[in-house]
Amino acid sequence: MEKTIAVIIDDFFEDVEYTEPIDAFKKAGYTIVHVGLKKGKIVESKKQRTKVRIDEAVKDVSAGEFDALLIPGGYSPDKLRVDEDAVQFVKDFVESGKPVFSICHAPQLLITAQVLKGRKITGWKSIVQDIKNAGAVFLDQEVVEDGNLISSRSPQDLPAFIKASLQKLQTS
Amino acid sequence: MEKTIAVIIDDFFEDVEYTEPIDAFKKAGYTIVHVGLKKGKIVESKKQRTKVRIDEAVKDVSAGEFDALLIPGGYSPDKLRVDEDAVQFVKDFVESGKPVFSICHAPQLLITAQVLKGRKITGWKSIVQDIKNAGAVFLDQEVVEDGNLISSRSPQDLPAFIKASLQKLQTS
Repeated sequence: MEKTIAVIIDDFFEDVEYTEPIDAFKKAGYTIVHVGLKKGKIVESKKQRTKVRIDEAVKDVSAGEFDALLIPGGYSPDKLRVDEDAVQFVKDFVESGKPVFSICHAPQLLITAQVLKGRKITGWKSIVQDIKNAGAVFLDQEVVEDGNLISSRSPQDLPAFIKASLQKLQTS
Repeated sequence: MEKTIAVIIDDFFEDVEYTEPIDAFKKAGYTIVHVGLKKGKIVESKKQRTKVRIDEAVKDVSAGEFDALLIPGGYSPDKLRVDEDAVQFVKDFVESGKPVFSICHAPQLLITAQVLKGRKITGWKSIVQDIKNAGAVFLDQEVVEDGNLISSRSPQDLPAFIKASLQKLQTS
């Protein structure tokens, strides 16, 4: 059965943390739906090289409609975490047990969703203290897998992040 | 006696959260020193309209050399909080009792410096959960004054932020 992956994204996302996982997911036959704050909005990457059209507003979708969630990093998570619907969507996803792929600044959304207590996770070095203060166990590894939560630190970790994510999709 | 204010700053700072307080401080007769990660580096604002030359590398200065500290917001604090010297400088400043002016995302640096436990503070809405998780009391006000710590939420709060900061400088 075909699986659909939601990507939650807004302006200032880190280019390759979107493009590389998405290319790999598409090649593996998965369908991608871009979820954001406003349907039809064109969001731009931090380096302004990558533009993405939002397919669905987060307020109009639910975690139940998708099989997995990708949260790219950069400053996109900082923009999304001020939106209640975005935070609820991410919270529902983590609690559903479906795979959630988090890289770089993505844990900021998980912190606001208050789903990290006791979870093992990694992320970008600037937010280590925030991750620890949220009650999570921070691990300085290229990829951390804790139940449905797969996480990596930065673009350098992308090969390991994509490999672990694809494996999770095949077995979940 | 003339007072000197350090501004700790890096790329992607929020334009007006630098320009407006600095203009007011200069008009009031204070001397400004731009402290950053590398002496001579030109840092750019988020909107790429404002360029600032770093006067001193943070590793080469100490809190004792200045009378107050301004931390502008935007994504500059996210960049500074990965640097150990920057975090130590901010920590020393808060603990010195000298005025620290924090706006928008600036509390991110205070969180990494682990100086917020039990302190009253405000900041940009995206980091409210991070502020609470750090053990601080978050207040949704245009300006919060708690001992040597003056804080505001966003550019809209600048008039109140500047007024409170100038008052603090005159009385400290």
